[in-house]
Amino acid sequence: MSYARQILNTYQRALKVDNGLLAAAIDAASDCAQACIADNDADLSEPNLTEMVMCIRLCMTCADICTATEAVLSRLADHDPAVGRPLLESCVAICRSCGDECARHAQMHEHCRFCAEACRRCEQACQELLDALK
Amino acid sequence: MSYARQILNTYQRALKVDNGLLAAAIDAASDCAQACIADNDADLSEPNLTEMVMCIRLCMTCADICTATEAVLSRLADHDPAVGRPLLESCVAICRSCGDECARHAQMHEHCRFCAEACRRCEQACQELLDALK
Amino acid sequence: MSYARQILNTYQRALKVDNGLLAAAIDAASDCAQACIADNDADLSEPNLTEMVMCIRLCMTCADICTATEAVLSRLADHDPAVGRPLLESCVAICRSCGDECARHAQMHEHCRFCAEACRRCEQACQELLDALK
Amino acid sequence: MSYARQILNTYQRALKVDNGLLAAAIDAASDCAQACIADNDADLSEPNLTEMVMCIRLCMTCADICTATEAVLSRLADHDPAVGRPLLESCVAICRSCGDECARHAQMHEHCRFCAEACRRCEQACQELLDALK
Repeated sequence: MSYARQILNTYQRALKVDNGLLAAAIDAASDCAQACIADNDADLSEPNLTEMVMCIRLCMTCADICTATEAVLSRLADHDPAVGRPLLESCVAICRSCGDECARHAQMHEHCRFCAEACRRCEQACQELLDALK
Repeated sequence: MSYARQILNTYQRALKVDNGLLAAAIDAASDCAQACIADNDADLSEPNLTEMVMCIRLCMTCADICTATEAVLSRLADHDPAVGRPLLESCVAICRSCGDECARHAQMHEHCRFCAEACRRCEQACQELLDALK
Repeated sequence: MSYARQILNTYQRALKVDNGLLAAAIDAASDCAQACIADNDADLSEPNLTEMVMCIRLCMTCADICTATEAVLSRLADHDPAVGRPLLESCVAICRSCGDECARHAQMHEHCRFCAEACRRCEQACQELLDALK
Repeated sequence: MSYARQILNTYQRALKVDNGLLAAAIDAASDCAQACIADNDADLSEPNLTEMVMCIRLCMTCADICTATEAVLSRLADHDPAVGRPLLESCVAICRSCGDECARHAQMHEHCRFCAEACRRCEQACQELLDALK
């Protein structure tokens, strides 16, 4: 069980949403940032480098936005929908396009297959959290 | 002149928007992240600590979102409005509420006055960039 | 299994060290950053706030250094000991002092107990990686 | 004047070192992170892409370590040499090798010339702060 999940119930929080949905989004954002950093590095080692440029770019942006999303969602005591909702929307959008691009390379590069999976999970977890916040 | 501003014209970019507006948003996000990290630390040293808790929390979230916004805006060769627009909206929202909270403490704490100013500038620069992207 | 661990063997890497040790350090740094961000927020909600200031400060620094360490270790294709070793040393040092401070509050605050555990694991995993790199 | 410099004297700090040296290191780390993110993106747009891979990699690691260094140095109220010194050493080392690599491309790519300059300044500012802390 992740630390985010364990700490979730140890103090009062402002974000009144199902524990499982919140923890899933935090963990998925953390996993996705990790996968994108690793996949970006692996892409840079591939012989078909010029075809990987879009994937390299998207992985960097995806890692940055997932890292910020994970941090903001992990601060449970305060929650401002005007901040949190568009951040989640941005995270869903970058995970979708990064996941799409990684999926295009998944057959040729195993690391892209793993990263596509991480992006899909993060996109879904953040979308489900967004839906629950509505 | 900031490095962001100097590098802006050295290669082809996707984001077709006025140079000055883009560089202003990148620089303001960088300055605001720096101010928020420093103000957060200064807040933690104040004797009226319990009154500073909201300011401490907002500064952390503001620093995280400004850092992500600065990075995403600095990657000029690709631009996806579905990612960039909500990220800028999130940045405007956190800079507004962090700036409001810092302004409440500005008379008592000089560091909050500086941070409020950084938040206002970043809110404005990101809003102007958002308006130009419409 | 973490994405770092899955991607570890999908391409050629410069860092010739046992897979398990490397993946353990990456995962522990990721977990520790997550725990420190959450614990910091929980600390700010506690009634004995003034006693928690040191813990709040250390958690922020620990999260920042663990995040950088995780990213640098995840880039496997290149490795410069002049960069990686002192970064790991810095990570070991902050995890030790943050873990010590969290442990002092562990009986009173469950979130600090979880965070102390995350810090101990990261300190140990980074130390073991450092020892293996010698 | 940067916000770091303005906030430096607004509260009591643990790090007893010349204001100018400290502010110079914080500002240089911030500038260098910004330059490295922008240069990395510009590198990815160049036709001689395969020759730029090392530069692309180093810029990412340099940005990550400079961002962490800037944050840790900006927290003035507490200072632990066991954490700060190796972090500065790591920052000096990555700025040196990233600066060297950028300098190799400076004649062909203006963005690399700017980034090399940012790396040199950060290397020097962090080294001077390290020397003063001895």
